[in-house]
Amino acid sequence: MDHAAAVRQLIEEWAAAVRARDLDRILAHHAPDLVMFDVPPPIVSKDLEAYRKTWDTFFAWSQTPTVFDIVEMDVTAGSDVAFAFALMRCAGAKDGPLDFRLTVGLRRVGEAWVITHEHHSIPAE
Amino acid sequence: MDHAAAVRQLIEEWAAAVRARDLDRILAHHAPDLVMFDVPPPIVSKDLEAYRKTWDTFFAWSQTPTVFDIVEMDVTAGSDVAFAFALMRCAGAKDGPLDFRLTVGLRRVGEAWVITHEHHSIPAE
Repeated sequence: MDHAAAVRQLIEEWAAAVRARDLDRILAHHAPDLVMFDVPPPIVSKDLEAYRKTWDTFFAWSQTPTVFDIVEMDVTAGSDVAFAFALMRCAGAKDGPLDFRLTVGLRRVGEAWVITHEHHSIPAE
Repeated sequence: MDHAAAVRQLIEEWAAAVRARDLDRILAHHAPDLVMFDVPPPIVSKDLEAYRKTWDTFFAWSQTPTVFDIVEMDVTAGSDVAFAFALMRCAGAKDGPLDFRLTVGLRRVGEAWVITHEHHSIPAE
């Protein structure tokens, strides 16, 4: 499998883990020092423990069954660094469907790709 | 200069071009098909012409002299793909200072680094 296909599969599996509300699988391919820019505050979450907490916030907000769909994704992969961006859809228990944007940055460590950065957002009104 | 230093310099020069309100310099290192996720709507701007228009929106909003500062930036560069993320500050003529988040994705084309993706956002309230 080429690098772009491997990165695409990793992100698809991560989104599937979110839909399954399986926190261990969600965090399975993240660096300890990853930096997250999330939809709600704070402005930045600076390590894996802070990243884990963003999912508590998400699962408290989201509807069940959980919606976390990749509508459209583009992957750019070199031999050791990659990034991907996507249009995404989730849904709140009270708020209903919410379209958002996702950018993911990755490094290759040995044979494995590891997420070191995520940026999730919606446009500001 | 190593790749990470070259990418850092390119982004610093881009931010300086924004402060100078110099549209040609702002667009000097962007791919024709770059994809922009901006702070205000729309949810996505899909090419260089749409990207150019986001700057009309920004300059109509921003104060003069223009604030567009890199507060803190992290660069990850391979030999042919790179990404960077940063905490940024700008300022609106009416709204005052605004902290935002930036992620940039780049490809190396020949000897030059080219921006193919930008994601600017603020947390949603």
